[in-house]
Amino acid sequence: MKLSEKARMCTLSPMRKFTPYAMAAEKAGKKIYKLNIGQPDIETPPEFFDAVRNFSQKVLAYANSQGIEPLQDAVVDYYHRIGVEYTKQDILITTGGSEALQILFLSILDPGSEVIVPEPFYANYNTFIKAAGGVVRPLSTIPEEDYNYANAEKLEALINENTRAIAIINPQNPTGNVLTEEELRRIADVAKKHDLYLICDEVYREFVYDTDDVLCAGRLRDMDENVVIIDSVSKRFSACGARIGMLISRNKGLMAQALKFCQGRLCTATLDQVGAAALYKVGPEYFAKVRDEYRRRRDLCYAKLTAIPGVVCAKPMGAFYVMAKLPIDNAESFQQYLLTEFEDNGETVMVSPATGFYATPGKGLNEVRIAYVLKEKDLGRAMDLLAMAIDRYNHR
Amino acid sequence: MKLSEKARMCTLSPMRKFTPYAMAAEKAGKKIYKLNIGQPDIETPPEFFDAVRNFSQKVLAYANSQGIEPLQDAVVDYYHRIGVEYTKQDILITTGGSEALQILFLSILDPGSEVIVPEPFYANYNTFIKAAGGVVRPLSTIPEEDYNYANAEKLEALINENTRAIAIINPQNPTGNVLTEEELRRIADVAKKHDLYLICDEVYREFVYDTDDVLCAGRLRDMDENVVIIDSVSKRFSACGARIGMLISRNKGLMAQALKFCQGRLCTATLDQVGAAALYKVGPEYFAKVRDEYRRRRDLCYAKLTAIPGVVCAKPMGAFYVMAKLPIDNAESFQQYLLTEFEDNGETVMVSPATGFYATPGKGLNEVRIAYVLKEKDLGRAMDLLAMAIDRYNHR
Repeated sequence: MKLSEKARMCTLSPMRKFTPYAMAAEKAGKKIYKLNIGQPDIETPPEFFDAVRNFSQKVLAYANSQGIEPLQDAVVDYYHRIGVEYTKQDILITTGGSEALQILFLSILDPGSEVIVPEPFYANYNTFIKAAGGVVRPLSTIPEEDYNYANAEKLEALINENTRAIAIINPQNPTGNVLTEEELRRIADVAKKHDLYLICDEVYREFVYDTDDVLCAGRLRDMDENVVIIDSVSKRFSACGARIGMLISRNKGLMAQALKFCQGRLCTATLDQVGAAALYKVGPEYFAKVRDEYRRRRDLCYAKLTAIPGVVCAKPMGAFYVMAKLPIDNAESFQQYLLTEFEDNGETVMVSPATGFYATPGKGLNEVRIAYVLKEKDLGRAMDLLAMAIDRYNHR
Repeated sequence: MKLSEKARMCTLSPMRKFTPYAMAAEKAGKKIYKLNIGQPDIETPPEFFDAVRNFSQKVLAYANSQGIEPLQDAVVDYYHRIGVEYTKQDILITTGGSEALQILFLSILDPGSEVIVPEPFYANYNTFIKAAGGVVRPLSTIPEEDYNYANAEKLEALINENTRAIAIINPQNPTGNVLTEEELRRIADVAKKHDLYLICDEVYREFVYDTDDVLCAGRLRDMDENVVIIDSVSKRFSACGARIGMLISRNKGLMAQALKFCQGRLCTATLDQVGAAALYKVGPEYFAKVRDEYRRRRDLCYAKLTAIPGVVCAKPMGAFYVMAKLPIDNAESFQQYLLTEFEDNGETVMVSPATGFYATPGKGLNEVRIAYVLKEKDLGRAMDLLAMAIDRYNHR
């Protein structure tokens, strides 16, 4: 029985491949502080659950393939409030930002088409691009330069006749890098010059800690044909399990093709769309509060991390991740050690080994991504466990 | 800005491409009886909504990529009750049967790989197979032979070195054909002989009207490596908007590859999984009642349809669709006529033009798929409108 080459080329998610070990450890009574996955402990605004509970239709019917109108309207309003004008026609509601990426890559990539992605990057880009027959062309960055990738020369050096898009995650997962307006413009100019899509994954848009600016590539009105925004309610409203995302673009040709794939899978879950529409009712005080909370976590996480001898990392400016080079031989072996051998008072910690965040073979072997998604007390304990585990791992 | 070849090769869904016309007609005050889409008017069992309302976690978190355990357990129990033994490891919960098909085809198809599909078939197979780089190899059937495709010789004639799978929908969408046990065995033997996947889309399993047998290819225990079941709660429990489906197989190699794509998109909506698990609590009396209701609709629909002069169709044995050749020149023009010109007392009807259900060019031009998903009174009126519209369309 044959399996596909693209399936073989894909890997298990670095965030999730150790889940079976974690489940076994938990069944054995171990407590695990999970810094491996971007699953915040912030409460989902009750507006979501209220809307879902008040749903009164007797038949849970299909929604429109492009999404229910109240949610599209809510998204249009939200963008208007941050100074970006979109219409309903520019928005396709998808099953998470994940499906927005899948549908986008299916719509623009042929076998061998290349997408330039600054590396390290959110690992599932690998899966989505390969599933569509494409190739990841990484632009390597380093912690010593704050993982900055806003370099026109380096970008242009990667462009060839197969290049279809530049994909940036801003704020960046997993590095926490945040672009300035000038840097975004610099990248946009390269995309425009070479007639490439500029894919801007902005699902962490509000999570910036050293500026009050909320950047959105949708403001680059000379780039209407190029810019595609990937968005989601998952992080913004701590509603990861709703699986509500969106593909946003003013490029009508692209949206017409994407709609075919949307119609193919019929629709996104109806009830979650109803709940998601209600989420957009929360005011700016919600974002301010969440941002303050994450800023404190970022500061704590970064302080604890840099206090561990031998750790190299850049201070994250946004999102809720930090990449770190640990003084260990291999992050995957270390992760396995954390789940199967290490414990302190019955507790351990989980991170994401980083090789999956790189497309360049051999990179990230002793690096990890840490998601600072736990409340300060838990996060502090988790980071102490990490420090303890590194020491014990190296003295086995 | 380039678009992908596979996007260009896909089409809008024949069930949904006329949605914009329908929305315009409805905004203008027209009532539309929708027989174009498999959206039943049967109430979703309240168990779904009760479970969703009772969800008490404050954070709507990601679920496991393979699905939540209570839902996997409920599915295992359901199959046990119909005499098919599966374990949790054989089940991946997906976003509708649609995503199960997408993930399956991504896992088994390389560029140019072929899937044999009896034609006419559920149109979105086209999209899913092409999106994965594959090719649909249709096995043509005709109404005069009840759209029967259980023909080993015809199947074998289509097999070549690129063939990876035979995909059957049983009960069949759009024809209503239902396999006997002996016919299923005949097809299975071909798949086994040629080492092919046997993809059995059984989302309409309980909707059979002339037999009490509930067929499931999971019972073919000599075919554990070949058989893949596509299943869903959408039709079984009239919960289309939940988008909960499943990919089921005892082929461990396949399931390991499919898990990569499941992890890539993180998970299926958490709350819908909680609701879906509760759906499986309904007893056999639920299925019996729903089946009786659909049998009456089938009988009414078929009687009204065959009373229209010039119509050719086969009596459907299962699912809730009937394919019919209408005495018109072109079903797409006719559909447009129905939505933009025709009306009787402010009412009209919508069906699915059938070319999209065929892979062979030129087939299905004057055929339509009718979904008998409305209660008898509405269905009767809808069929009367159809008869009236055919007459008027031909006398414009």
